[in-house]
Amino acid sequence: SVFSLSVPLENIKCYGFDMDYTLAEYKSPDYEDLGFELLRDRLVSIGYPHELLHYTYDPTFPTRGLVFDTMYGNLLKVDSNGNILLCSHGFTFLKRSIQDYYPNNFIQRGNTDRFYILNTLFNLSETYLDGCLVDLFTRCSRYENCQKGFKHGDLFMSFRSMFQDVRDAMDYVHDTGSLKESTLRNLDKYVVRDLNLPVLLTRIKEVAKVFLATNSDYNYTEAIMKYLLETPPGAKYPKKPWRAFFDLVVVDTRKPLFFAEGTVLRQVDTNTGKLRIGTYTGDLQHGTVYSGGSSDIVCELLDVKGKDILYVGDHIFGDILKSKKRQGWKTFLVVPELAKELQVWTEKNHLFEELKHLDIFLYFLMWGTSPCVLQVVTYRMDLSYGQMGSLLRSGSRQTLFASQLMRYADLYSSTCINLLHYPFSYLFRAPPVLMPHESSGDNHPLDFPSPEFSVLDQIQKIAEAKV
Amino acid sequence: SVFSLSVPLENIKCYGFDMDYTLAEYKSPDYEDLGFELLRDRLVSIGYPHELLHYTYDPTFPTRGLVFDTMYGNLLKVDSNGNILLCSHGFTFLKRSIQDYYPNNFIQRGNTDRFYILNTLFNLSETYLDGCLVDLFTRCSRYENCQKGFKHGDLFMSFRSMFQDVRDAMDYVHDTGSLKESTLRNLDKYVVRDLNLPVLLTRIKEVAKVFLATNSDYNYTEAIMKYLLETPPGAKYPKKPWRAFFDLVVVDTRKPLFFAEGTVLRQVDTNTGKLRIGTYTGDLQHGTVYSGGSSDIVCELLDVKGKDILYVGDHIFGDILKSKKRQGWKTFLVVPELAKELQVWTEKNHLFEELKHLDIFLYFLMWGTSPCVLQVVTYRMDLSYGQMGSLLRSGSRQTLFASQLMRYADLYSSTCINLLHYPFSYLFRAPPVLMPHESSGDNHPLDFPSPEFSVLDQIQKIAEAKV
Amino acid sequence: SVFSLSVPLENIKCYGFDMDYTLAEYKSPDYEDLGFELLRDRLVSIGYPHELLHYTYDPTFPTRGLVFDTMYGNLLKVDSNGNILLCSHGFTFLKRSIQDYYPNNFIQRGNTDRFYILNTLFNLSETYLDGCLVDLFTRCSRYENCQKGFKHGDLFMSFRSMFQDVRDAMDYVHDTGSLKESTLRNLDKYVVRDLNLPVLLTRIKEVAKVFLATNSDYNYTEAIMKYLLETPPGAKYPKKPWRAFFDLVVVDTRKPLFFAEGTVLRQVDTNTGKLRIGTYTGDLQHGTVYSGGSSDIVCELLDVKGKDILYVGDHIFGDILKSKKRQGWKTFLVVPELAKELQVWTEKNHLFEELKHLDIFLYFLMWGTSPCVLQVVTYRMDLSYGQMGSLLRSGSRQTLFASQLMRYADLYSSTCINLLHYPFSYLFRAPPVLMPHESSGDNHPLDFPSPEFSVLDQIQKIAEAKV
Amino acid sequence: SVFSLSVPLENIKCYGFDMDYTLAEYKSPDYEDLGFELLRDRLVSIGYPHELLHYTYDPTFPTRGLVFDTMYGNLLKVDSNGNILLCSHGFTFLKRSIQDYYPNNFIQRGNTDRFYILNTLFNLSETYLDGCLVDLFTRCSRYENCQKGFKHGDLFMSFRSMFQDVRDAMDYVHDTGSLKESTLRNLDKYVVRDLNLPVLLTRIKEVAKVFLATNSDYNYTEAIMKYLLETPPGAKYPKKPWRAFFDLVVVDTRKPLFFAEGTVLRQVDTNTGKLRIGTYTGDLQHGTVYSGGSSDIVCELLDVKGKDILYVGDHIFGDILKSKKRQGWKTFLVVPELAKELQVWTEKNHLFEELKHLDIFLYFLMWGTSPCVLQVVTYRMDLSYGQMGSLLRSGSRQTLFASQLMRYADLYSSTCINLLHYPFSYLFRAPPVLMPHESSGDNHPLDFPSPEFSVLDQIQKIAEAKV
Repeated sequence: SVFSLSVPLENIKCYGFDMDYTLAEYKSPDYEDLGFELLRDRLVSIGYPHELLHYTYDPTFPTRGLVFDTMYGNLLKVDSNGNILLCSHGFTFLKRSIQDYYPNNFIQRGNTDRFYILNTLFNLSETYLDGCLVDLFTRCSRYENCQKGFKHGDLFMSFRSMFQDVRDAMDYVHDTGSLKESTLRNLDKYVVRDLNLPVLLTRIKEVAKVFLATNSDYNYTEAIMKYLLETPPGAKYPKKPWRAFFDLVVVDTRKPLFFAEGTVLRQVDTNTGKLRIGTYTGDLQHGTVYSGGSSDIVCELLDVKGKDILYVGDHIFGDILKSKKRQGWKTFLVVPELAKELQVWTEKNHLFEELKHLDIFLYFLMWGTSPCVLQVVTYRMDLSYGQMGSLLRSGSRQTLFASQLMRYADLYSSTCINLLHYPFSYLFRAPPVLMPHESSGDNHPLDFPSPEFSVLDQIQKIAEAKV
Repeated sequence: SVFSLSVPLENIKCYGFDMDYTLAEYKSPDYEDLGFELLRDRLVSIGYPHELLHYTYDPTFPTRGLVFDTMYGNLLKVDSNGNILLCSHGFTFLKRSIQDYYPNNFIQRGNTDRFYILNTLFNLSETYLDGCLVDLFTRCSRYENCQKGFKHGDLFMSFRSMFQDVRDAMDYVHDTGSLKESTLRNLDKYVVRDLNLPVLLTRIKEVAKVFLATNSDYNYTEAIMKYLLETPPGAKYPKKPWRAFFDLVVVDTRKPLFFAEGTVLRQVDTNTGKLRIGTYTGDLQHGTVYSGGSSDIVCELLDVKGKDILYVGDHIFGDILKSKKRQGWKTFLVVPELAKELQVWTEKNHLFEELKHLDIFLYFLMWGTSPCVLQVVTYRMDLSYGQMGSLLRSGSRQTLFASQLMRYADLYSSTCINLLHYPFSYLFRAPPVLMPHESSGDNHPLDFPSPEFSVLDQIQKIAEAKV
Repeated sequence: SVFSLSVPLENIKCYGFDMDYTLAEYKSPDYEDLGFELLRDRLVSIGYPHELLHYTYDPTFPTRGLVFDTMYGNLLKVDSNGNILLCSHGFTFLKRSIQDYYPNNFIQRGNTDRFYILNTLFNLSETYLDGCLVDLFTRCSRYENCQKGFKHGDLFMSFRSMFQDVRDAMDYVHDTGSLKESTLRNLDKYVVRDLNLPVLLTRIKEVAKVFLATNSDYNYTEAIMKYLLETPPGAKYPKKPWRAFFDLVVVDTRKPLFFAEGTVLRQVDTNTGKLRIGTYTGDLQHGTVYSGGSSDIVCELLDVKGKDILYVGDHIFGDILKSKKRQGWKTFLVVPELAKELQVWTEKNHLFEELKHLDIFLYFLMWGTSPCVLQVVTYRMDLSYGQMGSLLRSGSRQTLFASQLMRYADLYSSTCINLLHYPFSYLFRAPPVLMPHESSGDNHPLDFPSPEFSVLDQIQKIAEAKV
Repeated sequence: SVFSLSVPLENIKCYGFDMDYTLAEYKSPDYEDLGFELLRDRLVSIGYPHELLHYTYDPTFPTRGLVFDTMYGNLLKVDSNGNILLCSHGFTFLKRSIQDYYPNNFIQRGNTDRFYILNTLFNLSETYLDGCLVDLFTRCSRYENCQKGFKHGDLFMSFRSMFQDVRDAMDYVHDTGSLKESTLRNLDKYVVRDLNLPVLLTRIKEVAKVFLATNSDYNYTEAIMKYLLETPPGAKYPKKPWRAFFDLVVVDTRKPLFFAEGTVLRQVDTNTGKLRIGTYTGDLQHGTVYSGGSSDIVCELLDVKGKDILYVGDHIFGDILKSKKRQGWKTFLVVPELAKELQVWTEKNHLFEELKHLDIFLYFLMWGTSPCVLQVVTYRMDLSYGQMGSLLRSGSRQTLFASQLMRYADLYSSTCINLLHYPFSYLFRAPPVLMPHESSGDNHPLDFPSPEFSVLDQIQKIAEAKV
């Protein structure tokens, strides 16, 4: 299903798509496995201990949207105000000792020099590797544990430098093309080929304009899109070149820069994959591929206004926040984790219900007992998602990622293919968001004109009597 | 009532209060009347046409949180993404012509050089005056209407310069003290004296620390607080000096700077109202009044951590957003408009229900009719609040103010006195916010596994048949 | 005389003048006396010890262009690279102990939060008062001397807060108009009336356009200019209203903002001194006075290009650096101190010659003696100017002020009246600045092809033998 | 010779060296030839017309320190205030038409988004290539000349995109190592091996600490330094490993970042050239090579203060301005062009003398003739240096580069080897810089007390009579 704030599809005159993790869904956890191994091996090759090779990717540990504290080496799950929901050091989850690091249980998110948000699906293997490194050095008897890193003789491994090494390895793996190469060599293993994708794009193109805007380069884009659109065995639709599915193809977009001033727009020579020099200024020609440019140029070339575009992408910051905030586009966030999130939510909904009651009763009735029960249930619920819990919540509190999704995504779904289930005249409507005071007095248990007559106050009085 | 995200009052070790519009509620619309007249007369005294004197403050026009576009002179009501909900030019509400000014129905809120948010209750009279000026010159036959202002012979009145004149008049009225003087001369007319205020502060002080942090100067603070706390006729509590209600009093706080680096902390000579030179460095002395300082200094002097403080204020940016985002304080936003908002909401709830249904059915059933019906109902609902509609919503869409309230205020209420209705062991709990996909499938009409079996799709098909 | 980089007066099509300290020279030290007393009395009135009243302005102490270190309370004289030339704490000049404060004898000038440059002639009395305060508290037995200020019981007087109090007193004295009032009450005492000024302006107006651009308000400008231009007893020129001397008069210019985006241009009602509302857009009308605006607007109104304007002012930053760097104007810096600087330079030139020789010989011949001799002569030379030495140099090293003058001023002189001594076809030519390598080998004693044959090397060898 | 502001070598406790163009002088124009060819071929390989291959590097055209205007494609020579001294479009020098592009003959240097300063010796081949491209497209009949670039059918080649392509090619040539490879394959052709270099470093090391701080990576540094220091045929000094010449070797310094916050300091494994992981924290070990770090770390490791360091480099911004302004280091700028500059200066000094006289007399005597004579002599003088004239001046006016050299370099010379000619107890003394008013009245022709008695005024009167 597709979930939404209000978007009348009928008004959408133009659909834009990101490629990676949007049109091209990578198979999890195989693709993360691959990324992790390339990263890990790179670190060993630049001098990290060989013990690192014993680690393999564990998909049950990381959750997207965690924050790495480069000062203390902790992975943090936080809410939109910077309150800490969960904190791990290596693979050890901190409880009381969170206070030692963060006296106020709070981080100043604005301090981006210290706190790095691991926001994208590409960051998952990196997130896990950050955990592995802290785990490795913490356990390793050769190294002494210090506040800001590890010491071994004259050598100091700061958390900051370890984090930087992982980031650099990430760039290395992407820039040298080793990740792309491995992916292309084994497309069936790493990329989901959904026969409905050409169907969806064909249908959209009948009613609206369609463009592709990806940060990938042309050669990789060509290989992936060919695989997705041109060779589906047993496809019902007549075979046509992948570029024919789009009115406009733009590679090397450098989002989020693309949504601001952008870069020079160039034409791609589709025979060689190289850029043509100069800037193309003529009318839009079908099948032409461009490199660079900006969202403004796309609007101009396709002759559409921002509010008439629905842009589908997976990057909450680079694709969604920026296109909405700077350009007023309608946005569709692809959240592959959603399939699992929904499944857990449905299966474990009783835990959430339990939580809701515990929240209240724990505080009023069980003064004698510790609030641990609350934590235990939160923890049980979190574990249903994985060690780091849900992408979207921790117990009854929403994560930073969830709050950004709520603010900036008009639609979201686990895959863009789900659009196929809706007619193009469909009106997506969000359930109206009521503010606390707008919820009707009857069913809002805490909103009462005078405490004297409140049931909860009764409970309260009982609780006080018990003390 | 007090509405909230989750805050267990029991954990709060310290309560902080702003003064203006928080402890001291100004009587509406008398106080806005006063402000408007001072501003208006100032403008005439610096050369604006005498016709301006015919305008008197109309409390049914302005709503807090409007945005003034200094380029085109429009007052805008926008949502958190910058989409325009309502637009007036003078007192004329624009409909279709909004597109002429804002082709995408959208403003880049980040452009603070052009767009000014009239966020505080002090801004209400200013907001109305901005409307008056545009109205006056638009109607005045001596002036020619231009895109960015008005022309009269060699004189050009840009919207920007008019807006700047009003801002300067505002500073004049505050800095020369004429507003304060008038207020103090007629306290009963302008300031609400609630006998419960000393009760509330006394109760709080029994269980927690209490401080006052106001941007006002000492002399004004002294006069207002004396009136509120020392002389209540028929008060039940033994009379005591107003400063005895607080553990710490800080004036001249210069919020929002106060929540960042702050200024030098000085002692106030309470006999003369003048600042002592130098910085006070000793222990906190009861009854001492300070000037300047910062939130960090307050925490130090009172020996509390940020998360243990509940700060009560009326300024969404200066009091609430900053204290939460930079310091991790718990926040309580006073929204005097809430009393009226609740009343309208209750009385006109049928309109909102109607709107919910119209939203859906209009799109699916009534292709032949214009979407005007939707607008008409939205408009009828808006008018119940005033010409500019509700502070918090426009039809089914939330305003920027509402979205900021939801993000940054842990609690909100029409007055801080409402705290009196809750025991200090109270747990304020927000109704759990569910994300769209978490609402259970059954009662979410638009979320269906396959469109074939959907009732709405049936409607859709009927609609298509009608075309 | 007027000193210069190359400026052909003939090409100048427009002359602009600042008023304060440019057309209106204030009598020194009477005017500084007045400023000092107003500042000092203000400080006492806000709580500073009455002992402060014993201090009177000493014109031999301060030099313009000093830097106040708000951390340690020192007055510093620095060169353009931030190297310290002189350092006083109160009235005590530091020698060796400079190293304790500034280990590298160097300040990072870019740190404007800590280091404040006292650049204008208005700053002279402030500079001296900063010295007085440090002197007072250092001597006062009630106060304990600390690194960053003084302590007295629970009270801490930081250097930073003292400095801020003086700055605030400065604003108070200017904003309340007390300085202006006192000046206008006693014009003959405080303002130089040079009968040549109307002559100069009349002559210029015959060959070029003339404008006045002052940060002062209209009423003060009117009073001062009337005094300077309208009532000269025994003037040869026919009496005419002061505004007739200019093609354009602009008050409230808010330089340096004036040289960047500026403010709204308004007309001044010369009968009431009040601003007209709106912006004047017509052709330039003679005798009209404007408020605000920007340098771009001035160029437009007068129809001249930046390079055709010679702007005469006294503020190295606000008048000269900004007009040159942002607008490419030609600049004329008025440096009233120059009269004295020239006199000392002429009288004490032997000291400078001595210094030149000492510089060399001290290092090569007198290993046994301390380099104090060099310092002694520098000191003797400095003292001829005053306690803080010359505005422009310390011994053989140039001050920051001098280097800025050299970079940004095309012409400079002690008074703009000196322009009268030059025909308007005059070519001001700077002596060509040779770079060290361009000075011919013969008279550059240190530039020799091979050290074997150098006389200095001989000396060197002798010196080594002596060791 | 070495030219200077005052630096007593005796006080220098530590010498730091950059490598490229400082210890390793590249042979001109062979090295620029190489760079040009690599750049040019790269451009053709990405699609630029094959006609570009006809261009070969012309060392007589470019001068270092030119500014490229990315809007209009012009190469500009400017003075420190942004006044234009020379302007070429391609290889065509503009005269009158400069005004069409720059109405005020002036650029706002601060606008770094538009104006790019080609400051380093590496930029020389790039500068020439920028000229070639403009020349090629201007002449090419297929392309239409537009204001901001060239048009060919639907293709628009903006000057900005051409410039960006050259910059990208530059990065390509450096990052792929093709320039380094070619250099290392032919060291004798491209790198000057001065047998005095090991002598100089050995002598310095006897009296002070020595470090190398280069932006190059370890492998390239190793190859170059080995060549320069280890294998000199017929060297008098006993052979020793190159690292033994230094107390500290730092590669990958990322100047100018190195002089600010810097990067993580790592150890280099000198066997493999790879970085060790972690940060080295022990005492300085001789022969150890580090990567990254900052100037603060260097001071700490070597236990020296900034003012005791003389840093020798070739990059006016990255090496000299930053080390002086942020750290207070003493600086020595290597200016290889100086050898030629001095030679021309000496040979053509008569032209400069002529210029000095022309400057004056042209304005006073030859009203009837055009000021062209002045321009002709300036031009003849400029041509003696090359087409773009001297690095340091244009006629009697100094370039931006010269003014920066004067402000930030304590010493400068064509090569650091020249230090060998001075004893380490040497006092470099700048000829005292006199300000215009300090030059004695007698020999300053334009400074006269009253114009009546001036010789020049006589000339002036004659000139006026002639009109």
